[in-house]
Amino acid sequence: MSGFAAVDVIRAKRDGGVLSEAQIDWVVDAYTRGQVADEQMSALAMAILLRGMTGPEIARWTAAMIASGDRLDLSAVNRPTADKHSTGGVGDKITLPLTPLVAACGAAVPQLSGRGLGHTGGTLDKLESIPGWRASLTNDEFIGQLRDVGAVICAAGDRLAPADRKLYALRDVTGTVEAIPLIASSIMSKKIAEGTGALVLDVKVGSGAFMKSVDDARELARTMVDLGTAHGVRTVALLTDMSTPLGRTVGNAVEVTESVEVLAGGGPADVVELTLALAREMLTAAGLPDADPEAALRDGRAMDAWRTMIRAQGGDPDAPAPRANETEQVRAESDGVLSGLDAYRIGIAGWRLGAGRARKEDPVSAAAGVVLHKKPGDPVRAGEVLYELRADDPARIPAAREEAAAAVTISDTWSGGTPLMLERIA
Amino acid sequence: MSGFAAVDVIRAKRDGGVLSEAQIDWVVDAYTRGQVADEQMSALAMAILLRGMTGPEIARWTAAMIASGDRLDLSAVNRPTADKHSTGGVGDKITLPLTPLVAACGAAVPQLSGRGLGHTGGTLDKLESIPGWRASLTNDEFIGQLRDVGAVICAAGDRLAPADRKLYALRDVTGTVEAIPLIASSIMSKKIAEGTGALVLDVKVGSGAFMKSVDDARELARTMVDLGTAHGVRTVALLTDMSTPLGRTVGNAVEVTESVEVLAGGGPADVVELTLALAREMLTAAGLPDADPEAALRDGRAMDAWRTMIRAQGGDPDAPAPRANETEQVRAESDGVLSGLDAYRIGIAGWRLGAGRARKEDPVSAAAGVVLHKKPGDPVRAGEVLYELRADDPARIPAAREEAAAAVTISDTWSGGTPLMLERIA
Repeated sequence: MSGFAAVDVIRAKRDGGVLSEAQIDWVVDAYTRGQVADEQMSALAMAILLRGMTGPEIARWTAAMIASGDRLDLSAVNRPTADKHSTGGVGDKITLPLTPLVAACGAAVPQLSGRGLGHTGGTLDKLESIPGWRASLTNDEFIGQLRDVGAVICAAGDRLAPADRKLYALRDVTGTVEAIPLIASSIMSKKIAEGTGALVLDVKVGSGAFMKSVDDARELARTMVDLGTAHGVRTVALLTDMSTPLGRTVGNAVEVTESVEVLAGGGPADVVELTLALAREMLTAAGLPDADPEAALRDGRAMDAWRTMIRAQGGDPDAPAPRANETEQVRAESDGVLSGLDAYRIGIAGWRLGAGRARKEDPVSAAAGVVLHKKPGDPVRAGEVLYELRADDPARIPAAREEAAAAVTISDTWSGGTPLMLERIA
Repeated sequence: MSGFAAVDVIRAKRDGGVLSEAQIDWVVDAYTRGQVADEQMSALAMAILLRGMTGPEIARWTAAMIASGDRLDLSAVNRPTADKHSTGGVGDKITLPLTPLVAACGAAVPQLSGRGLGHTGGTLDKLESIPGWRASLTNDEFIGQLRDVGAVICAAGDRLAPADRKLYALRDVTGTVEAIPLIASSIMSKKIAEGTGALVLDVKVGSGAFMKSVDDARELARTMVDLGTAHGVRTVALLTDMSTPLGRTVGNAVEVTESVEVLAGGGPADVVELTLALAREMLTAAGLPDADPEAALRDGRAMDAWRTMIRAQGGDPDAPAPRANETEQVRAESDGVLSGLDAYRIGIAGWRLGAGRARKEDPVSAAAGVVLHKKPGDPVRAGEVLYELRADDPARIPAAREEAAAAVTISDTWSGGTPLMLERIA
């Protein structure tokens, strides 16, 4: 009878109806247990994408995904907890400096991260470019490191929202990623289940983000803030620009290097600005409004926390970054100002160079990526280097070269870009 | 790369785009070969259901499904060929008397049929209630019988539109049956591939049909007529009423018995009327406008063709019909006129009695079904039998009793029902 009941649920949503709490609980649980088939859930996901869900439906769906696994108890950590989630962008390495920075200011950061798929990189892929560093921790190791170091970035365990794990993989291959109810419930089920007390969401907008319009991003942010609040997690969202890459590096090891520069008190202005803005939001939401993250960057406490965090997971913070076999420098053909640098195309270029993966089981290259010598607004002279393409396999260069070239616009004048910080939703 | 390309096709349709011929050819072929997964095709089917398809998209989709297998060549039959397809209804046994009747009038009828699923019966299930009759023929047997007897009703072979076979099973469990582009391409790909020269479509409208409104039925009919015509098949559609069951029997053996009554020159008026109307359309489309099917019923030629057809497939036309273990007669509680007899509910009652199946692998009962003693418009006196419920398993009676009782309306007056013949589309 499970097929029969699944068809009824699919039809109800297909025809624009509102699913009952019992239907949602049943279908999420039955899918997790394999009683609703992948082909049934993908049809339902498409119906949800095209028909939408009400607020109460999204809330119940999220609760059902949390209930499919365990909800962690972080009370043994004995400090306020705060986490951050970004909806994903190009060059978005903010988690790397942000996690030790917030820990250095007194909160514990239980950052459960993922790997990259498509044109956006994954935090775990970036950290795995550090020799020895391991992404998998047991629950006890996770809570112990959170208590002792205050900072953990690791892979989510199998028992954390297993319904979401299964559904996410399915959505990826069935064209059903871009549904706000499914994105919001996927993110929030994992973050609520991990047990954090406060959460700051970095919702990206622009060509390099899933959300191309501010309206969509605002709707997603509002939906997630409401879900977090309903589950007792103090949740705030920032809408930030992703029309151009963050910082000057897109890849794995190159982004670690840039993150360490930020922790050393330097680094690109946009990365520093966003790291500090998110740190202040996290610390305030964690009940530490007087903490001073700028001082923690300046005086080396954030860097100390980084080194301790990397070592705690077996990594060598002093290991030299891996070098790519092939580097190609691309130069400007004319004078002017760099007026456009499209995040999506640079993301695709990095992906083609080997920094990302086309399928979940593919390996990534630690050294591959794009290093930007010029950013939007920078004056450019003919012959100057605009960016470097790095790859282990020279055969990967030509396709990346074409994509990166199409990302660049050089003009006579510069009218100013989109501001980095767009909106705050609480 | 196939997953990547499949996602692109799904997204294009999801976002309301028109699929290219290359996309359609690729996705249908890759799905047939197992390179596009069921969960991807079900997401695409849901997107097609909710976004629709243009005429050229439906035509290409149909052509791709035909191209997934073989197209039969019936030239060795040496007579004009004409087939009929009904979109499915309750008590719709018309194929049984119609096929030998048209053969008796000079055309050959290559009727490839299916089994029932849900509340509508299947032609093969009905004929399998005849002892010895077999549904499976080789291609050579099929063409030989068509040449020698002029009438074949059998199961479609594995090589006939295999893409449709796979897709149909998927749609059934994913809530994507009710999409006009998918219904039309499913029916027409099989009928075009079977090689018939002419085709008459009986598109049912009403509670017992897939199409509940005349507008939907007209759109489906128009779509199918255009598809047939584009592939060189002379195609005509009749829209006919399915708000109440056809004839006085709903089941398997009981419908064979009623069909034989029609072939003997008797039978219920509505079954005779529809059989003759469809026979005239088929014969005209086959280039035999002067044939006289009424005479062929009267003078026994149609009955002779039936007996020859049944014997050619191993059946005994003189075998007694199987009897049900349990029969319950339901009587009127008051005087009046039978003003309503809902086709869908009577179909469900027959299904619950064992005449239909819930899953493809379930067996059906030959003897189970509903025998109607009164039809809409008939005067009724308290105590008179309205209908009989027949089942092999007495435990099946109560649920069927409840459903059938809800199908019946007895009133003081009768304002006339829906006419049987609604529209003709050519």
